[in-house]
Amino acid sequence: MALISTLTPVFVAILCVVVAFILKTRRWSESSSAQKSSSGGGSGPEARPWVDEDLQDDTEISGRENEDDDWAVDDWTEDLAHVPYTPRRYPEEEMLERSKHFYALLNERRSVRFISPEPVPREVIDNVIRAAGTAPSGAHTEPWTFVVVADAETKHKIREIVEEEEEINYKQRMGDKWVHDLRRLRTNWVKEYLDTAPYLILIFKQTYGIMPAGKKKTHYYNEISVSISCGLLLAALQNVGLVTVTSTPLNCGPQLRVLLHRPANEKLLMLLPVGYPAPDATVPDLSRKDLKDIMVFV
Amino acid sequence: MALISTLTPVFVAILCVVVAFILKTRRWSESSSAQKSSSGGGSGPEARPWVDEDLQDDTEISGRENEDDDWAVDDWTEDLAHVPYTPRRYPEEEMLERSKHFYALLNERRSVRFISPEPVPREVIDNVIRAAGTAPSGAHTEPWTFVVVADAETKHKIREIVEEEEEINYKQRMGDKWVHDLRRLRTNWVKEYLDTAPYLILIFKQTYGIMPAGKKKTHYYNEISVSISCGLLLAALQNVGLVTVTSTPLNCGPQLRVLLHRPANEKLLMLLPVGYPAPDATVPDLSRKDLKDIMVFV
Repeated sequence: MALISTLTPVFVAILCVVVAFILKTRRWSESSSAQKSSSGGGSGPEARPWVDEDLQDDTEISGRENEDDDWAVDDWTEDLAHVPYTPRRYPEEEMLERSKHFYALLNERRSVRFISPEPVPREVIDNVIRAAGTAPSGAHTEPWTFVVVADAETKHKIREIVEEEEEINYKQRMGDKWVHDLRRLRTNWVKEYLDTAPYLILIFKQTYGIMPAGKKKTHYYNEISVSISCGLLLAALQNVGLVTVTSTPLNCGPQLRVLLHRPANEKLLMLLPVGYPAPDATVPDLSRKDLKDIMVFV
Repeated sequence: MALISTLTPVFVAILCVVVAFILKTRRWSESSSAQKSSSGGGSGPEARPWVDEDLQDDTEISGRENEDDDWAVDDWTEDLAHVPYTPRRYPEEEMLERSKHFYALLNERRSVRFISPEPVPREVIDNVIRAAGTAPSGAHTEPWTFVVVADAETKHKIREIVEEEEEINYKQRMGDKWVHDLRRLRTNWVKEYLDTAPYLILIFKQTYGIMPAGKKKTHYYNEISVSISCGLLLAALQNVGLVTVTSTPLNCGPQLRVLLHRPANEKLLMLLPVGYPAPDATVPDLSRKDLKDIMVFV
């Protein structure tokens, strides 16, 4: 007992150090992970200001709102009939011609920030959205909603929301390096095209689906699927001679979702102003990588 | 001193409890976060087995390997000249015709898992990759690498890696619900097309770029950009009458990256087998959503 009594101060000292150390490491790991998920400024690799928290799936943000989820299963378990598939086949010479022609068409595409207010036939817009809707998606969930805004007042409200956030992005969130990287493209937070373009297409990803019975349905790879469908949309727009610029308004998602009355399972992924190019439209004098710089043949 | 001596056993006891408690909570939070980021099974919203850790940016996985980064800036700060842009403009009737025709073309596309071994002209593949390379990208970083595999031995090695991982995915990682969701598409972990397709196109996203001086360059939105370029690739393939299936091999990225000698800044995003459809090819009898179900007009 005497031995213990004399040793206990040592025990206490050791234990205090242990506790202090553990608490310290815990606090550190907590703060670092918090920093990782925040949209705080800075341009280092660990700060990722271009990652919009609202772009994350609900499941990525927090499990809380999903605690009471009742995920639909039954209506997905039946097998589908499989049918023969014999698409059109072209002779080799024609294939080659078509591949050259399609590359030439897409290679003409540029991101255009100067859009003419001239009207564009609504039916053309319907068809480019239909084309985008043919994209593949994880387990055929088709997790996309295309909100086409033609109403001038709504377009202006969108502009106000985007410019307000973008100014904060440029001045605070993005960090000097990103602003530098964008300077050469002469982009800033003033987005006149949000008023002038005859149509704004806001592309929402559905982070989960809602079955007729109100049950939720998992949307696998929904961001990749919706981005692929955006690729088809860009090709469809280029094919009819319309221009756009692929924008990802940082941190505007929640406000725009509310403005456009979209449900909670939808997150804004991209905003595309669509129209004819302005007569005096210019684009930065960029070139694209050569085939040898993007393709590796094995 | 006597007081302390008599109290110290109590101190020790309390401190032991505190330490035990802290260690316990730490271990719990560690294991739960590990489970979240791992591909562990289950089908609830908090378990996300379809999220491949290797698909995350390095910055998302850990800051460690980036500690000593030296991010290039200077060569990005100069302004580019801006040049007039006057793309081809079509009369309204022609626009409408083109939009209908392009939608009809893309609407014929299906994901095909039965691919013919017939050879396909290499030049056609070059052109569809060129077309994919015209996609827009964050700050024009063009963060994609298309690895085209025609070598039979390499294709078979890829098949072995993918099938081994996929079998584990189906049996352990994905959870019953996902397996159910895929059953209707009759997909499983046997991927014969990885041997039979004349070409496998493995699409890597570059999570950061490397400047001539060896400095690193941020790649904004690299996953969205590469997914958009995959959309252009799918359109280009459909345009020449070739078929593919958009696959995202879960957890195969690191092995395939090593097999194909790709650098550490590249992560496998998608794997597309490409060729003519097999004569007896079938597809699940799926339909696509109507325009009214994917478009909202404001």
